[in-house]
Amino acid sequence: MTENQKIVVIGANAAGLRAGARAKRLLPNASITVIDHGRYISYGACGMPYVVSGDIEYADELRRTAYGVIRDADFFRSAKGLEVIIQTDVEKIDREAKKIICKSLITGETSEYSYDKLVIATGSNPIIIPGVPTGSKRISTFKTFEDALAIQEAFQKGQIEKIGLIGAGPIGCELAEAAGAMWGAEAILIDAAPNILPAMLDVEMARPIENYLRSEDVKIYTDCPLEGITETEDGLVIKTPKGEFEVNHAVIAVGVRPNTKLAADCGLELGKGGGIVVDEKMTTSDPDIFAAGDCAELKHLITGKPIQLPLGSLANRQGRVIGSNLGGGDERFGPVVGSAAVKIFDMNVASTGLTEKAAKDAGFDVGVAWGTATDIADYYPDKQNLFLKLVYDKGTTKLLGLQGYSQGEVVKRIDVFAALLKHDGKLEDLLDAEFAYAPPYAPAVDPLYSIGCTARNDLLEGLKALPPDASIDDKLVVDVRRTQEAADRPLPEESCQNIPFETFRDCCADVSKDKEVVVVCSKGVRSSEAARILKQAGCADVSYVGGGSLMKLGQ
Amino acid sequence: MTENQKIVVIGANAAGLRAGARAKRLLPNASITVIDHGRYISYGACGMPYVVSGDIEYADELRRTAYGVIRDADFFRSAKGLEVIIQTDVEKIDREAKKIICKSLITGETSEYSYDKLVIATGSNPIIIPGVPTGSKRISTFKTFEDALAIQEAFQKGQIEKIGLIGAGPIGCELAEAAGAMWGAEAILIDAAPNILPAMLDVEMARPIENYLRSEDVKIYTDCPLEGITETEDGLVIKTPKGEFEVNHAVIAVGVRPNTKLAADCGLELGKGGGIVVDEKMTTSDPDIFAAGDCAELKHLITGKPIQLPLGSLANRQGRVIGSNLGGGDERFGPVVGSAAVKIFDMNVASTGLTEKAAKDAGFDVGVAWGTATDIADYYPDKQNLFLKLVYDKGTTKLLGLQGYSQGEVVKRIDVFAALLKHDGKLEDLLDAEFAYAPPYAPAVDPLYSIGCTARNDLLEGLKALPPDASIDDKLVVDVRRTQEAADRPLPEESCQNIPFETFRDCCADVSKDKEVVVVCSKGVRSSEAARILKQAGCADVSYVGGGSLMKLGQ
Repeated sequence: MTENQKIVVIGANAAGLRAGARAKRLLPNASITVIDHGRYISYGACGMPYVVSGDIEYADELRRTAYGVIRDADFFRSAKGLEVIIQTDVEKIDREAKKIICKSLITGETSEYSYDKLVIATGSNPIIIPGVPTGSKRISTFKTFEDALAIQEAFQKGQIEKIGLIGAGPIGCELAEAAGAMWGAEAILIDAAPNILPAMLDVEMARPIENYLRSEDVKIYTDCPLEGITETEDGLVIKTPKGEFEVNHAVIAVGVRPNTKLAADCGLELGKGGGIVVDEKMTTSDPDIFAAGDCAELKHLITGKPIQLPLGSLANRQGRVIGSNLGGGDERFGPVVGSAAVKIFDMNVASTGLTEKAAKDAGFDVGVAWGTATDIADYYPDKQNLFLKLVYDKGTTKLLGLQGYSQGEVVKRIDVFAALLKHDGKLEDLLDAEFAYAPPYAPAVDPLYSIGCTARNDLLEGLKALPPDASIDDKLVVDVRRTQEAADRPLPEESCQNIPFETFRDCCADVSKDKEVVVVCSKGVRSSEAARILKQAGCADVSYVGGGSLMKLGQ
Repeated sequence: MTENQKIVVIGANAAGLRAGARAKRLLPNASITVIDHGRYISYGACGMPYVVSGDIEYADELRRTAYGVIRDADFFRSAKGLEVIIQTDVEKIDREAKKIICKSLITGETSEYSYDKLVIATGSNPIIIPGVPTGSKRISTFKTFEDALAIQEAFQKGQIEKIGLIGAGPIGCELAEAAGAMWGAEAILIDAAPNILPAMLDVEMARPIENYLRSEDVKIYTDCPLEGITETEDGLVIKTPKGEFEVNHAVIAVGVRPNTKLAADCGLELGKGGGIVVDEKMTTSDPDIFAAGDCAELKHLITGKPIQLPLGSLANRQGRVIGSNLGGGDERFGPVVGSAAVKIFDMNVASTGLTEKAAKDAGFDVGVAWGTATDIADYYPDKQNLFLKLVYDKGTTKLLGLQGYSQGEVVKRIDVFAALLKHDGKLEDLLDAEFAYAPPYAPAVDPLYSIGCTARNDLLEGLKALPPDASIDDKLVVDVRRTQEAADRPLPEESCQNIPFETFRDCCADVSKDKEVVVVCSKGVRSSEAARILKQAGCADVSYVGGGSLMKLGQ
């Protein structure tokens, strides 16, 4: 490491700029050049759906520092000491000569920059589905600042009355909200997966969110791969196995692929997931070249496998690691657990770690538990129900994942759980977690603790929880809710026996011991206790509905 | 362990009832008797201030299950299979005969219960200060359900226009809000400690909360030990070194002492903190007797010392551990880190682990960092500033504590930090934490990550952060905020040089290298960077104000 080395960074967003700025802080005499092909740099891409929805009035808010300065090339030059060159394509990395060759998108001129150390932060490109025409103004991706501005403009001009959203990940869901709530447009959300938000939620956890979106007039088609889009005179026709949909505009948001062309062309090692292989110091297979952000390949802490997590929060952290290491530090970026959150209308949805499906695919001996609880003390005003699903390994009791939704608080529980995942947490650690408790913030018994208890009870007592969407029509259903609760929100199953929990110990002899019995209550707490009582009383085949009727019927 | 053993529990609140109910679940044939001296059992004591404030309309809400059933003796009998006997004093534990002797508070009759296993969950008693008359209706504690009902009634009858609150812990602060906001009464908050909420906050973190309370017309006197209270014809006179205060009513809420009389009388070992000594299985010095809740002595994870943490959330967990162990399990309740939270008007205050003061008292080589950041993305509507203080050990970089306040989100960060504390977290773990990120929930760079970076930078780069309330009048103050920011909220110091951060690299030669320089910005981010630049430019004595002007001046 020399004090006045030349550092070149390709890509001027979270990872690249953070790496550059951090290096400059540590190496004031270094010459640091950051090159980007775009016109806008350092924008909060995650905020773009909120520009379209109108929650953020001016798109430029995404480009301002917290104290109001636009983060453009000038800002990075004067405030951070970085030379930032925009609207310039990097055409080639010459590793032997240690230089890069660029071409200005404005003048067409080429230029070269030599480097001692190079940082590749070229991000990712949206995946394009075969069968989708290119070059249509009515079909867009939602990746760049320009993408957001274009869609916002089309809405503003009244050009979109009906929008097709291909891909029901966070972006698709956020845009569905924006289209309807802000612009009164009809949104059609289409995904090939069995449910929306498939990377975050298992099917039964996604269903209530889908129903909620439908109640806000969003059309949803899952298990519905796109077969093609054709352009007509005044719009588009989206073709799927579930029908053809006429829309004015379509957004393809089915994910991104690491942008690794430059890296591949110069022979850097790429991983199985398609990203640039880096070690924990974010060094590529060339010790003078680092890579960070969407273009680098991460490792999943739980599966040990490569994972693609195109998140600004992680890109930023990786940038800092590179900047510190350029400055002589020894910082690491470890494997990730993959936390995610999305707000859809008033519904908060979040997850971390593996879904049940992902955990099974990874070969774990999967146990699951569902939990319904209030997000804050149940006697405190404005409490909301919080719905959680816990995934763990039955053999080791190792925690694997948590997913949840609520119109109240859910993200806190996900973040605490992620901290446990990061430290190889087990079910027992959930029961040992401490929460800053006061009635406006949590119940005395936190939902995270409760779901840990549920899983542990099920495991130790051999109790079986059925998924809230399980079909139980052919079983003897025992409803242990209060008579009034049961009357207010009846279960759809025909043969229901209502024995309120308060009298259950006295009346449980009335329950047939020879049938398959399923116990239901509102949240899965009373029913689990009742199931245990039935089991102790000799009932051979008894289970309960996890998460209770609130999860089964919708809150 | 026998299937049909006799279990007796003394105390029918969180710890005792949970222990009993859990044991009954595992041992359906056991006979379990719970005895309590009170009329009301199993009430959410932490919700009592909100009954007084009117946030909770009916006090009985604190006694209901989530599905609306009052948790009285009948409920526990029918739903949980416990025999609950109320309004009965336990007078003696006879360990040799394995029985307890009781006296009914209604009939005066005595009775005996023999036990195989005994659980002591006798809770705690409010500390009474010498010089406070006993027996006055105008002086109360705030510990029992009856206490809350009595104060609510006094307010309702218009008997309290001015209330003296002795003790500025969470209860005192919550009652100050209740008195003013709900009843229009003047509250006077008095504490012997140098600041309010002394167990949660260091002085400079408490000052803004004190100012906030003052803006809501609460009178606050800290460093102000109570000298006595005298009763007059129509009220009370509270005597302190800072003056005499005439009030209609006084509440003494200076903490609680473990209620260990029964345990002491029968020779169980008590700890230095005054609680009943228990091991990790919650067993006392008598293997047939367990203890849980406020009466048991806990161990602090970080100091290793005994600690008293009278929290319903912990009592509940301890109860479960005992119940499980009674049922043949092997569960543990480990050392605690002591998370706490309190809502005061719209201000959320929370902390975990050690304050700087407590960490110094415990002998750590204490490092601190302050951080000001928005709680969610700074471009997202309704963002709020979040103010944090991090306490760590400089030698080992071990995390020791976090305290924070915000009119937005703060508790999540405290809970995540507590999870790290529980796993022996270091500064590096803060930088490795993953957050479920979306603009409505967090900035891309979480405040918790940022404050970790701040501490690490300060430590590695030898940068000195001054507390936000430090006196810097005698130093050269360099204000690196934008000119408009500086004009809008000027610093009180006389000799202020304003060099906006955007031009700082070019202009920093203008700063005198021979003086003691203190750099200030709004949040402590730009100023830390500018201080680093000055240091690199040869400035010998440079520091910056932690948390920035927003923390220094109040947001």
